[in-house]
Amino acid sequence: MTFLEEQGTKAKKAASKLMISSAKIKNDALFSIADALENKSRIILDANELDMKKAEESGMAQSLMDRLSLDLGRIEAIAKGVREVAGLPDPIGQVEKLEERPNGLVIGRKTVPLGVIAIIYESRPNVTVDAAVLCLKAGNAVILRGGKEAYNSNNALVEIMREAIEHVGLPRSSVSLVQDTSRESADALMKLTKYVDVLIPRGGGGLIRHVTENSKIPVIETGEGNCHVYVERSAGLKMAADIIFNAKCRRISVCNAAETLLVDRAVAKEFLPMAKKLLDTKNMEFRGCAETKNILGSSVKSATDEDYFTEFLDYILAVKVVEGIDEAIEHINYYSSKHSEAIVTNDYTVSKKFLDEIDSAAVYVNASTAFTDGGEFGLGAEIGISTQKMHARGPMGLQQLTSSKFVIYGDGQIR
Amino acid sequence: MTFLEEQGTKAKKAASKLMISSAKIKNDALFSIADALENKSRIILDANELDMKKAEESGMAQSLMDRLSLDLGRIEAIAKGVREVAGLPDPIGQVEKLEERPNGLVIGRKTVPLGVIAIIYESRPNVTVDAAVLCLKAGNAVILRGGKEAYNSNNALVEIMREAIEHVGLPRSSVSLVQDTSRESADALMKLTKYVDVLIPRGGGGLIRHVTENSKIPVIETGEGNCHVYVERSAGLKMAADIIFNAKCRRISVCNAAETLLVDRAVAKEFLPMAKKLLDTKNMEFRGCAETKNILGSSVKSATDEDYFTEFLDYILAVKVVEGIDEAIEHINYYSSKHSEAIVTNDYTVSKKFLDEIDSAAVYVNASTAFTDGGEFGLGAEIGISTQKMHARGPMGLQQLTSSKFVIYGDGQIR
Repeated sequence: MTFLEEQGTKAKKAASKLMISSAKIKNDALFSIADALENKSRIILDANELDMKKAEESGMAQSLMDRLSLDLGRIEAIAKGVREVAGLPDPIGQVEKLEERPNGLVIGRKTVPLGVIAIIYESRPNVTVDAAVLCLKAGNAVILRGGKEAYNSNNALVEIMREAIEHVGLPRSSVSLVQDTSRESADALMKLTKYVDVLIPRGGGGLIRHVTENSKIPVIETGEGNCHVYVERSAGLKMAADIIFNAKCRRISVCNAAETLLVDRAVAKEFLPMAKKLLDTKNMEFRGCAETKNILGSSVKSATDEDYFTEFLDYILAVKVVEGIDEAIEHINYYSSKHSEAIVTNDYTVSKKFLDEIDSAAVYVNASTAFTDGGEFGLGAEIGISTQKMHARGPMGLQQLTSSKFVIYGDGQIR
Repeated sequence: MTFLEEQGTKAKKAASKLMISSAKIKNDALFSIADALENKSRIILDANELDMKKAEESGMAQSLMDRLSLDLGRIEAIAKGVREVAGLPDPIGQVEKLEERPNGLVIGRKTVPLGVIAIIYESRPNVTVDAAVLCLKAGNAVILRGGKEAYNSNNALVEIMREAIEHVGLPRSSVSLVQDTSRESADALMKLTKYVDVLIPRGGGGLIRHVTENSKIPVIETGEGNCHVYVERSAGLKMAADIIFNAKCRRISVCNAAETLLVDRAVAKEFLPMAKKLLDTKNMEFRGCAETKNILGSSVKSATDEDYFTEFLDYILAVKVVEGIDEAIEHINYYSSKHSEAIVTNDYTVSKKFLDEIDSAAVYVNASTAFTDGGEFGLGAEIGISTQKMHARGPMGLQQLTSSKFVIYGDGQIR
């Protein structure tokens, strides 16, 4: 038995204990974790310092260093997040309409944990705690496989969590970290079908694609966001400019950020200069179609087909002038990663058509795509944003970390 | 572009039309299909005769020949089933609690079709129609890949359905059949991630495993059923004997049939001979543990570890005497395929423990596992029985052939 298989065995055993644990003890574990993270912040910060030193030596980019680094404030924020998850309603054990069938059988569908969830992610140590406590709250054991750059931080966080979990009487192995951070260990984890029920990759497009293409375990695909804002001819143009500015610039590195602006031909001449003026305050690079270039002038680069497929995660915006709602919908359904799309319009029929025909996880009328987030949607906390259609779509909260089983009460029925 | 990719492109285009089609037109298509199947039964029967002749020449087993054969009565039953599906409530377009957030955004989760569903199945032509109409009713396009033994029958059925669908104004390509029935075509279909959203294999364990191990498309695993009946010490023994007899013998070839009988040591001496007497009327072969052999005598073979893992689909029953509820649960959670399990008991606490701790899709108290079926559970009709935990678990009806998207109504919100 490999080390990873042994870890899987332990996680599976922990999962069967968690499956029958009460909401109270799971919440006790979460509060215990929150307290321990604060009480042992020194250990976490020392470990993080090791990671930061190595990162600096290896010449890691500043933006990545920032994601990796922890300080007291961040640890407190993580602990606060854990207490908030403890405060959410327990998703387990709800029975959906217990129903009596004509033969007297009483049948209901009950929410149960998924079992063992594996999470493969990159180098943000806060994900280590966020993901673990969401899984735990939903009664699942979790195997974490973080990036090698954050190994020391992750290991410290996981050891503290394991101790805190054991402290309330739940199994240590409810949470564990894959110690080997090589690419091979991730690949081996993806084949652990005997022990792992669901695999959730969190990170960039490359990681996600590698996982979906190679995993033997059912995967929930998360995160790639090539999002669109379409400004229709009847739109309030001031509102439209504010929405594209917010959707694009609020945070350029997140998956709900807009990457392409589509503008109705009827308002392009009026709207594009307005939008450009606002976006220029962020030194936005424009990549437009021929008409866009005609209207906005030579500072605009030509957009390639590839640009319309790209999640820039940068101060770059693709722009296209379209004939109307049909061309907008066709463009989006063809180029989008099916994450979040918004229309700005004042036309009822057009808004309905957009909501009906856009095939993405979140479809907006007159609002910024930046709202696609578990917290903003009222789900409490999120483990990621699914861009696939099976099991979960859009922001995934605790409910999406559960499965169900049918419970059937009889008094001797045979068929 | 390969022929299969072309088929995928057409199916995807049909799916985007189906996505926005009304319940009425989808039902019209179903009624049109039902009528056409009856009116063109001659064409179907001729095609089926070709398949039957080939099957006979190749020396196909009688039970398989029976599954393959169609007659007027079977065609009428298929058409009746199609009309019943048309009569079910439409699963699409329901919005789950449209909710206003503090910032005024109104957010709801709406059921939408999955998109393109591929079904890989073996040689029962009735599956061709059942699967197609369920997918269609839920607004999905479907690519069918049936077994080569049923090719002529399937092709006739699919051509009749395509014509009937076109007749009401929906795209022909809403339903299509993979013309190449080689193993390679199934493997190529499993890689069609660009066009197919979900893959459902229907058939024996070998097929299912091949698909789950090789598909790049998200899979819903169906069907393998190593089901258990546990007779607890407080059980009414007459009821227990009736339940194991029904669960095992109602139809031995189906996935909800029981394969292992577990008996509490306290009642084994009394119960096992009772059960054996009843099961002997079907010439049941017993494979038991040492205690079972002691009680039932030398006609009982020794059960191997492998036997307890096996879905016999035959007149063979594995038997084990256990110490009590804990050993029963442990045995089931270890050996089961997690399909359906039943306890026979009159002890409240024990029944609750069984319902809570058994990790299977359907868990029964005092009833036969034979009820695990979409129709019996009130889902209307079923596309299969899922034994995985993601997306769907247990009998899958129309609801399990849908996805969801968030619809968000704003009035200029930015974040």
